[in-house]
Amino acid sequence: MKRVSWSSLDASERVQALRRPAQQASADTRTAVATLIEEVRARGDVAVRELTERFDQVSMDALAVTDAECAAAATALTPALRDAIDEAAGRIEAFHREGMTREYAMDTAPGVRCERVLRPIARVGLYVPAGSAPLPSTALMLGVPARLAGCRDVVLCTPPRPDGSADPTVLYAAMRCGVRQVFKVGGVQAIAAMAFGTASVPKCDKLFGPGNGYVTEAKRQVSMVEGGAAIDMPAGPSEVLVIADAGANPAFVAADLLSQAEHGPDSQVLLLSDDAALIDAVAEQLERQLAMLSRAGVARRALESSRLIQVDTLQQAFDISNAYAPEHLILALRDARAWLSQVEAAGSVFLGDWAPEALGDYCSGTNHVLPTSGAARYVGGLNVASFQVAITVQEVSRDGIAAIGPCAVELATAEGLDAHRLAVALRLDEVAA
Amino acid sequence: MKRVSWSSLDASERVQALRRPAQQASADTRTAVATLIEEVRARGDVAVRELTERFDQVSMDALAVTDAECAAAATALTPALRDAIDEAAGRIEAFHREGMTREYAMDTAPGVRCERVLRPIARVGLYVPAGSAPLPSTALMLGVPARLAGCRDVVLCTPPRPDGSADPTVLYAAMRCGVRQVFKVGGVQAIAAMAFGTASVPKCDKLFGPGNGYVTEAKRQVSMVEGGAAIDMPAGPSEVLVIADAGANPAFVAADLLSQAEHGPDSQVLLLSDDAALIDAVAEQLERQLAMLSRAGVARRALESSRLIQVDTLQQAFDISNAYAPEHLILALRDARAWLSQVEAAGSVFLGDWAPEALGDYCSGTNHVLPTSGAARYVGGLNVASFQVAITVQEVSRDGIAAIGPCAVELATAEGLDAHRLAVALRLDEVAA
Ligand SMILES: [Zn+2]
Ligand SMILES: [Zn+2]
Repeated sequence: MKRVSWSSLDASERVQALRRPAQQASADTRTAVATLIEEVRARGDVAVRELTERFDQVSMDALAVTDAECAAAATALTPALRDAIDEAAGRIEAFHREGMTREYAMDTAPGVRCERVLRPIARVGLYVPAGSAPLPSTALMLGVPARLAGCRDVVLCTPPRPDGSADPTVLYAAMRCGVRQVFKVGGVQAIAAMAFGTASVPKCDKLFGPGNGYVTEAKRQVSMVEGGAAIDMPAGPSEVLVIADAGANPAFVAADLLSQAEHGPDSQVLLLSDDAALIDAVAEQLERQLAMLSRAGVARRALESSRLIQVDTLQQAFDISNAYAPEHLILALRDARAWLSQVEAAGSVFLGDWAPEALGDYCSGTNHVLPTSGAARYVGGLNVASFQVAITVQEVSRDGIAAIGPCAVELATAEGLDAHRLAVALRLDEVAA
Repeated sequence: MKRVSWSSLDASERVQALRRPAQQASADTRTAVATLIEEVRARGDVAVRELTERFDQVSMDALAVTDAECAAAATALTPALRDAIDEAAGRIEAFHREGMTREYAMDTAPGVRCERVLRPIARVGLYVPAGSAPLPSTALMLGVPARLAGCRDVVLCTPPRPDGSADPTVLYAAMRCGVRQVFKVGGVQAIAAMAFGTASVPKCDKLFGPGNGYVTEAKRQVSMVEGGAAIDMPAGPSEVLVIADAGANPAFVAADLLSQAEHGPDSQVLLLSDDAALIDAVAEQLERQLAMLSRAGVARRALESSRLIQVDTLQQAFDISNAYAPEHLILALRDARAWLSQVEAAGSVFLGDWAPEALGDYCSGTNHVLPTSGAARYVGGLNVASFQVAITVQEVSRDGIAAIGPCAVELATAEGLDAHRLAVALRLDEVAA
């Protein structure tokens, strides 16, 4: 991991120190993804099966998970794992429920009732990648808010295992969220199938969930096409920024940095501290702990593009963090709560020594689908509202148009929109008559 | 306007009847817009001035509106117009304030405090097109929620008039919302300047507002580029769908259809009714009222791609409307309130005979920046949350990690993520020690 002192860097070196790995798909990737999407769009399930055979090395007959497979999933898990999934789902549900957008109504003038009503997005598609291991936590993070929103059709795609079955852990988590339409399809073919629909896979209005570079590019492409699907948010490699003071525990900090690094070789990991000794101690702990990790190779590669940054003051660290806008921000500070007001842009914040990012990934209750690549400057993480549409309503009586109609007439006249003026004026005449 | 009977149409004719005019920019437009964006990105204000000369036929020195120009704007307006802008701003502010997302905090387990905190998007760019007339209402619809959100830098771009000045009506509306950074720049050059920044125009994190096809394509392009800016929503031509019963007032319905039609030649207008006589009467009123409109030519062209649709039942009308997902939905029905529950997807709904769409455009209190092109299936209109980011927070004590740590360890183990497990296990060991 590269170590730098912030105040010794010039402006361009500072930009360089915070630069993220290049994230846009190459022209080759874009073309390859576009071709795969077109195949699925044109030939539906036939293409999905072919691509599954090509990329997942498994020949599938039915793509849908059967009720029997679902029932078997629960018994395949240890009771401890079932309990953990249930427990995590409970806290995620409690936190997301409390944050739900509310409907409201108010009279903005006598006889003018304005409202916001909420509707679930009718058909949503959830993507749960397999990666090197099943990701039941992602099924929970997508499935719980979809259920709270009340979406009518919730479709979930996850790659098949080599034997053609779905991972029972993912299935159990999906069932825990009431998801009943699960398909053993992964990668670009899953995104294309949910965006355009096939004989097996229902067409969805909006797609959710993380994935590798190909999945991300596929989501981007289907969201740009008329007749495609909306997507949850722009996605990039996962990131953590830790701000630690002299009192932080170096072993904890190192473990948090490695948690992020093991997500993938393109994960980005930043430590900012005003204490040189803490940085030394963390660097030492990183080497010690790396030796204990099964995914040490992945983590080492991620650490190559990561930084240990010594700052002059903690305030400087917050300025850097706000400019970077990290997905995860850990404040390993003695008075972390007091510093929270300095955070302007981040996906999720972890306060104090006892809040490792892993808790947010799994079971504190917050969502782990968060803005990456600096998108935290303008968008927050997934929540129930991501699965709903808000509709505004106005109900106007004769008294109501008498009250506010003249204002509309004046503005329509200023904007030179005759028919707008007329639509109000005709009614005002009728009310006055 | 084409008249059809829904039950006489076969499936493909039904698709055709609800088809929107093609909305994706042509390859030529895309290339032209990309070139303009690149010019502004490379040469900043110099390019902005050149493009302003080319497209707006005006040679600009300073791009920023001066304090003197702002001060003069207020006195240039009639008191009645000033009052109308103030009155509209007041209702828009009241409705938007009431709907603001709230911060919240809850303990999801003993010692685990989860929260949502809100932050304004730091730098937002508002685009107010000029069109054939100034659009002060758009300045209000963008400026009021930006102010409620507390955005630090609010930048507004609007095309210069032929004499190089800014429209005083737009300026007055902008000032009413506390916007102090106004630039006389329009079109693609305005979008590019706000997305990438120039010497005059500050770089913005997110861009808002309507515009013609070029502006829409420019917004799309800057939102796809690393280092560009986020945008409010996909934009297309404006639309209204009216569901009217036998008791509706044909003159009102016709005026509402024409209000939409006069927005532009690509506006789309649909009337659905279960009463043939009402449709006849509306058709007659359309011709009568067209004769009275200054923008009759525009309205006639919009009506060419629009439809009068006779349905068998009102329920059928709602099924069609939900499939179409209109930007504006007018329910000119005797029991409009009762039918609201049938609305699944729409931008804004107008209940009853006394709620013309023009009220929502100007001054009922709801926002007029709404999802078009069927996007109402998955996104709502502009609101204060569009100008904010929600950040989740977790604060965990020793008791907290003792309570939920084992759940995280179980899930991290299932997902094969050693460092995640370790980050929690190290802390659990410390707590137990
Ligand atoms: Zn993680
Ligand atoms: Zn209108």
